[in-house]
Amino acid sequence: MVKDTQYGFGVVVPGAFEAVVARTTEALKAEGFGVLTTIDVKQTLKQKLDVEFRQYVILGACNPPLAYRAFQAELEIGLLLPCNVIVYDRGDQTMGVSAIAPLLALGVVGDNAALGSVAFEADAKLRRALASLEQA
Amino acid sequence: MVKDTQYGFGVVVPGAFEAVVARTTEALKAEGFGVLTTIDVKQTLKQKLDVEFRQYVILGACNPPLAYRAFQAELEIGLLLPCNVIVYDRGDQTMGVSAIAPLLALGVVGDNAALGSVAFEADAKLRRALASLEQA
Repeated sequence: MVKDTQYGFGVVVPGAFEAVVARTTEALKAEGFGVLTTIDVKQTLKQKLDVEFRQYVILGACNPPLAYRAFQAELEIGLLLPCNVIVYDRGDQTMGVSAIAPLLALGVVGDNAALGSVAFEADAKLRRALASLEQA
Repeated sequence: MVKDTQYGFGVVVPGAFEAVVARTTEALKAEGFGVLTTIDVKQTLKQKLDVEFRQYVILGACNPPLAYRAFQAELEIGLLLPCNVIVYDRGDQTMGVSAIAPLLALGVVGDNAALGSVAFEADAKLRRALASLEQA
């Protein structure tokens, strides 16, 4: 079950980290989201600060038709794009997979009906992607 | 003058696009932010949708010590990181340079004092970086 969190929604998925990252990428692709950026948080913190951290990746997911509509509705929407999806090791052989809630994030933008419709669609697609990870 | 917008703050800078992107990257570096990701919006929209768009880049800026504190305060904060900084062509030989407002973005997270202090520092640093672009 996709559970809402304070500023996103997520699922808990059994499996190895790399395998869950790969499955998440495929699930996003099935909903039209390509992964434009990948930040390896563990590796970055090790390199920059020499500290240890759990396995954790931030995927920047972009659905091009929705993104294009968003840019046309609000030029500065790039500040809130792409949609972040995180995968991290919960330490109990399960991985947390969560996505930013577009309706919440874009709620920041206020009254823009065109943008609201994009957020609504993006929200539904991301929820479907995450839900599919539980069904496999 | 750094002007607040609906979910960020920004400046308008004269100059060529590439030069302003380079200056922005340097200004972020001076405040401890490395650029971890770069999305060329114009190129991405051309490749994926074959549509024309203005010059526009989304820089994912990360200040490692602040990011580490944020992750320690709130595991799922990766959904709101890195801090996006956008540079785009305004079409009048000036470039818009805007940053996400960490205080606003992290405001979404609610009552977390440790996170609030990180957001406060990140906000101040990003404002200084953008302000420095006007002074050069």
